[in-house]
Amino acid sequence: MTKLKWGMIGGGEGSQIGPAHRLGAGLDGLFTFTAGALDHRPDEGRDYGIRLGLDADRAYGSWQDMLAGEKARDDRVDLVTVATPNSTHFEITKAFLEAGFHVLCEKPMTMTVEEGEAIVEVAKKTGSICAVNYGYTGYSLVRHMRAMVARGDIGKVRLVKAEFAHGHHADATDADNPRVRWRYDPAQAGVSAQFADCGIHALHMASFVTGQEVTKLSADTVSCIPVRTLEDDAMVNFRMDGGAVGRLWTSSVAIGRQHGLTIQVFGETGGLRWAQEQPNQLYYMPLNARLQIIERGEGNLSPEADRTSRVTVGHAEGMPLAFANIYGDLAEAINARKEGRVMDPAANLYPRAEDGLRSMAAVFAVAESGKADGQWLDARPPMFR
Amino acid sequence: MTKLKWGMIGGGEGSQIGPAHRLGAGLDGLFTFTAGALDHRPDEGRDYGIRLGLDADRAYGSWQDMLAGEKARDDRVDLVTVATPNSTHFEITKAFLEAGFHVLCEKPMTMTVEEGEAIVEVAKKTGSICAVNYGYTGYSLVRHMRAMVARGDIGKVRLVKAEFAHGHHADATDADNPRVRWRYDPAQAGVSAQFADCGIHALHMASFVTGQEVTKLSADTVSCIPVRTLEDDAMVNFRMDGGAVGRLWTSSVAIGRQHGLTIQVFGETGGLRWAQEQPNQLYYMPLNARLQIIERGEGNLSPEADRTSRVTVGHAEGMPLAFANIYGDLAEAINARKEGRVMDPAANLYPRAEDGLRSMAAVFAVAESGKADGQWLDARPPMFR
Amino acid sequence: MTKLKWGMIGGGEGSQIGPAHRLGAGLDGLFTFTAGALDHRPDEGRDYGIRLGLDADRAYGSWQDMLAGEKARDDRVDLVTVATPNSTHFEITKAFLEAGFHVLCEKPMTMTVEEGEAIVEVAKKTGSICAVNYGYTGYSLVRHMRAMVARGDIGKVRLVKAEFAHGHHADATDADNPRVRWRYDPAQAGVSAQFADCGIHALHMASFVTGQEVTKLSADTVSCIPVRTLEDDAMVNFRMDGGAVGRLWTSSVAIGRQHGLTIQVFGETGGLRWAQEQPNQLYYMPLNARLQIIERGEGNLSPEADRTSRVTVGHAEGMPLAFANIYGDLAEAINARKEGRVMDPAANLYPRAEDGLRSMAAVFAVAESGKADGQWLDARPPMFR
Amino acid sequence: MTKLKWGMIGGGEGSQIGPAHRLGAGLDGLFTFTAGALDHRPDEGRDYGIRLGLDADRAYGSWQDMLAGEKARDDRVDLVTVATPNSTHFEITKAFLEAGFHVLCEKPMTMTVEEGEAIVEVAKKTGSICAVNYGYTGYSLVRHMRAMVARGDIGKVRLVKAEFAHGHHADATDADNPRVRWRYDPAQAGVSAQFADCGIHALHMASFVTGQEVTKLSADTVSCIPVRTLEDDAMVNFRMDGGAVGRLWTSSVAIGRQHGLTIQVFGETGGLRWAQEQPNQLYYMPLNARLQIIERGEGNLSPEADRTSRVTVGHAEGMPLAFANIYGDLAEAINARKEGRVMDPAANLYPRAEDGLRSMAAVFAVAESGKADGQWLDARPPMFR
Repeated sequence: MTKLKWGMIGGGEGSQIGPAHRLGAGLDGLFTFTAGALDHRPDEGRDYGIRLGLDADRAYGSWQDMLAGEKARDDRVDLVTVATPNSTHFEITKAFLEAGFHVLCEKPMTMTVEEGEAIVEVAKKTGSICAVNYGYTGYSLVRHMRAMVARGDIGKVRLVKAEFAHGHHADATDADNPRVRWRYDPAQAGVSAQFADCGIHALHMASFVTGQEVTKLSADTVSCIPVRTLEDDAMVNFRMDGGAVGRLWTSSVAIGRQHGLTIQVFGETGGLRWAQEQPNQLYYMPLNARLQIIERGEGNLSPEADRTSRVTVGHAEGMPLAFANIYGDLAEAINARKEGRVMDPAANLYPRAEDGLRSMAAVFAVAESGKADGQWLDARPPMFR
Repeated sequence: MTKLKWGMIGGGEGSQIGPAHRLGAGLDGLFTFTAGALDHRPDEGRDYGIRLGLDADRAYGSWQDMLAGEKARDDRVDLVTVATPNSTHFEITKAFLEAGFHVLCEKPMTMTVEEGEAIVEVAKKTGSICAVNYGYTGYSLVRHMRAMVARGDIGKVRLVKAEFAHGHHADATDADNPRVRWRYDPAQAGVSAQFADCGIHALHMASFVTGQEVTKLSADTVSCIPVRTLEDDAMVNFRMDGGAVGRLWTSSVAIGRQHGLTIQVFGETGGLRWAQEQPNQLYYMPLNARLQIIERGEGNLSPEADRTSRVTVGHAEGMPLAFANIYGDLAEAINARKEGRVMDPAANLYPRAEDGLRSMAAVFAVAESGKADGQWLDARPPMFR
Repeated sequence: MTKLKWGMIGGGEGSQIGPAHRLGAGLDGLFTFTAGALDHRPDEGRDYGIRLGLDADRAYGSWQDMLAGEKARDDRVDLVTVATPNSTHFEITKAFLEAGFHVLCEKPMTMTVEEGEAIVEVAKKTGSICAVNYGYTGYSLVRHMRAMVARGDIGKVRLVKAEFAHGHHADATDADNPRVRWRYDPAQAGVSAQFADCGIHALHMASFVTGQEVTKLSADTVSCIPVRTLEDDAMVNFRMDGGAVGRLWTSSVAIGRQHGLTIQVFGETGGLRWAQEQPNQLYYMPLNARLQIIERGEGNLSPEADRTSRVTVGHAEGMPLAFANIYGDLAEAINARKEGRVMDPAANLYPRAEDGLRSMAAVFAVAESGKADGQWLDARPPMFR
Repeated sequence: MTKLKWGMIGGGEGSQIGPAHRLGAGLDGLFTFTAGALDHRPDEGRDYGIRLGLDADRAYGSWQDMLAGEKARDDRVDLVTVATPNSTHFEITKAFLEAGFHVLCEKPMTMTVEEGEAIVEVAKKTGSICAVNYGYTGYSLVRHMRAMVARGDIGKVRLVKAEFAHGHHADATDADNPRVRWRYDPAQAGVSAQFADCGIHALHMASFVTGQEVTKLSADTVSCIPVRTLEDDAMVNFRMDGGAVGRLWTSSVAIGRQHGLTIQVFGETGGLRWAQEQPNQLYYMPLNARLQIIERGEGNLSPEADRTSRVTVGHAEGMPLAFANIYGDLAEAINARKEGRVMDPAANLYPRAEDGLRSMAAVFAVAESGKADGQWLDARPPMFR
């Protein structure tokens, strides 16, 4: 298998997300970092790209230059990651898709539902891959959880309980710190803060593991630190199209919780529980039996789990490897296309434009329901109603 | 200190609650089991009482006989526990209070809010103690949690997160089992099943540890097993009179959870977390510092914790001792009255008629909100509005 | 069943062990506290006994008076607990056994192996019950662990791993505190400190759960705080008569451990793990399968576990109830004798004089091996060789 | 910083260790996989190397060819990893060191103490880096543990407690499986099985975190599965040159433990505990204070921890990243030499030839002591006595 060529937009020097993507893309040796427009300041971006090992002619000064440059090449990049500020995701993703590139877009994919629908349509029209980076779904045992639900290990799903609650924005005296403040400012963050930032990961995971989509929801959003316009804590009740009931809590003022992403699924014949902070164990309880601890890397798991497990049982794996698993899915999807074969279904799990769109619809529904005393609202994007 | 005389109504042979109360009342040697009307079948009740060591003349055939018999004695019982079927709590409790007895009533104190208000008024008028058995508040570290909040260790409380979610009624094939079915039948259980049975413990605990009362709430109630009329899962959002926001989840279909009572409190300068299944540790995180583990029995805790801790640090204490702590509060309250002194404030923590009444109002509000798409409703009893 | 009459020697005002025994004996209502010689100061002992509810004529001034007084009565106490300073256990226990009383002796039963052999012989000759208080064996899941091993759930036992390591004597600046110092002084504590105080509980538990006795051992004993003559940390390797290999660590300088009693047993077809600080869960791993969590109080456990479980699954039980289970065993043993029937085998688990003797032999072997560079020594008392 | 050129010997198709090294070396983009002799079968090795992306002229058929080929080039590889069968490590490592290459050798570095001393001397003479892959020391919080001890956070170390106990070789019916059997066969494995395979990691970690070296030891080695010649379980007591006492347990028959590497250090003013299966938390207890949980990635840790932490606090990191940290140390060491500067002291932590030698001496001492009833033996290699 030849290595694929990979390009990135955004992720300039000093950013957190840039190194994370380079780590994820490079970790399994599936992609070579080949092109980039890393900074909105052209010289800084080009210079940083060259220092990171890009050839000078593929260290671009802007995404527009990169689009033009790569389009013109025979050996164009196979995948473009968009890791720019949120408000620019739509424009860039759309432009690259239209030019026939495969794209992995950071979340949120867009700032509005309408833009989300536009991306879905472009992706459909061009046939290009448009993935969205809900990276926590890359964990091996999350994928096993999904596989267990899909093969019926816990029966019909009744209930999903999701949380993403941390305490890192709980200091009122730090609320004016620019690093924190923008997240709660509608002018910069949009209609939602904590739900759009963290809660949406938990909501997407609820869909991912159950194989069901959210239909309607009711939200209670609050600003525990009063100067904030947007919510720092939210409780969302929801319903899914396969009949499951959902409850989701997200918070940024839960002092004492570090990350707090957890997912529990309860079906007619069993329950499952997973927590991001201890990702190598999955708690499984069959009805009328005892709690069992499933270990990442143990034998006889699902193809989805086996494919995404690298080291032997008992060794910890962590977030960067989960992230790499998303890139692994994409490499397989791209290679399968190149080779004219059906991709490995166990890799066909990367979140896609439709997920990015549904997330955006959910964010708007949460924001609106939160203002309307928890009124139940349709959480589906119009094109999926 | 002389031992107090204690009587029980209900708790006949084969019941679970009878041995639990006898254990709780007797554990510290504060009460002597002196009188009882243990069964609705007079002969069985008398016989069982005698076998348990009661004198024949105080092993009564009915609560009415016991009321008459004890009223007529100079050495009447100091405390009467009411552990009969729920629908009889009101009548019996009221009658004993009116006759000047102190009462510990099992939850729910009444079946309606109106009855609850009547009990509160009778207790006020007679000056008798009317306690309600929210036994989980007896745990030493729950009391320390309350003390920490009260003395400001976590600042103003922003958020309370409470859960009481188990999976013991999750088997649909067992839903018709009479042992389970009655709980979800309005004719026997009233307006609410899982919330009234378990959720209310968590809601009361939210008030207990924060020192705030619930003002309004919104509920999402569902029957995950469709044949049930009443809810087996509920999410309740609420607000408290000191400004705290609350979220409470309760479930009986959460397969894999054994008991699931947990309480988390987040304030301006710290967070706390406690779980009934590991009651000897309290997780404390001061703002901008590290998580600490507070151990039951360690030195330098609060008077409330020290009073209710029996064995040295590192040894487990459990539910029967928590239960005994409620009886310990009552013994101190009764003895203080007898001795004409102020009771130890660290023992003045037993749940009382007002709590039983507030709980009843919350149960009705949850049931009504659940039917009304989560409409926010006043959760306070009329007499406290 | 009539309540048995119980007497205590030692456990005077301010002691820790006195309330613990009264709690354990009284908790299930099986024993009535009837007689006592609670203090080596006659007046204080009598006065305290009367305040605790003893009749004046059974509140004795010395154990000799109590022996004489109770011997002379028709309604003599059914069981005598000896909770005096260690060096007096032998004399008192022997005297009461010889007078035909059943005795529960605090550990250590004696100060020498010879004394231990004498007690075993007296108990055999008189036919009286002589129990020794290794209270941790009373935990419901410890008994279930023993039952699982006995019925072959983990196959032939290969390996036992026991620990009792805490950090409460780790402060060198506090080493001269009289409360701590005496424990490391041979004049007061005998030949061993931490092993005799804590380690022996773990060693006894290794025998209890495997049903095997220790045959030989090798010890590495050290004083991490140099001023101490006796050890504050020890590692003991041992062999058992059923072929099991044992490893035991005990420490009082393990800062960060609260109590630290844990026991792991590994057999040919499974492993088990239990820790006193979370006594309501037992970790069970069948060979080539997944770790399961056994909960105290779940259905379908052993008679030994069911008998000693009081509250429903998911509720914590703790040390005082374990302690009460030892008293429960003794009540059953005494009642069975009175009623001329065979006792419930599931209660026939109280540690007895032979265990006290074996423990004493092990303590001396540890002390001697520790001085001899870990030489392997016979750990059996001469009478069992 | 230009990428370094990296070569590997061994790690052919189907091996576990090959992908692990390629992942570790490539993960941070510090090394480019440039040359290899991957298989003892020349054609298979060359073919696999080419498929992995090596240029044909640097996909060698044998380590001798690779040595000759690389020596002759101006752009020779900067680092050679030796991941061949254990018995060949010495010869290959020595040859490459003598030719001036830097080497990372898999453990065990050699099969005898004499060979180990030879490697140390060659490395000293040539000035080349000779690292040995004790990969668990790469974990960020293990390095922080070392830094805390070094800066005095827990005072003088009194006691180290190390474990590496798993249950993956516990099935007696599988003992003849060739995949397992060779490990317990002296002809293939040498003088020790479980201690040499796993226990030595724990012993090295004891040195790593305390900064002390082992001086003498006493071992109790057993074969729980009787057909095995070499031990499957061992307990080792040891002493260190800074005065610390050590206890180490290793097992491959501890059914129910997955990996089981844990390290606890107890000093005069505090204790620390870390477990490989939950590597992102470090438990710290200062004397007379409460247990604190240190999180990987939290602020204000040590330079050693900060350097080796990639993702934000609350996200799990795992073993492949620990492994990559060893490569990160080596990249820094090599680059510092190239650039004529002092290397970052926070990276100067890779295990080196001296550690490999000390480990070999300890393995032989354990084997010999185990045969001699636990006799205390000098654990130091002759050249360090």
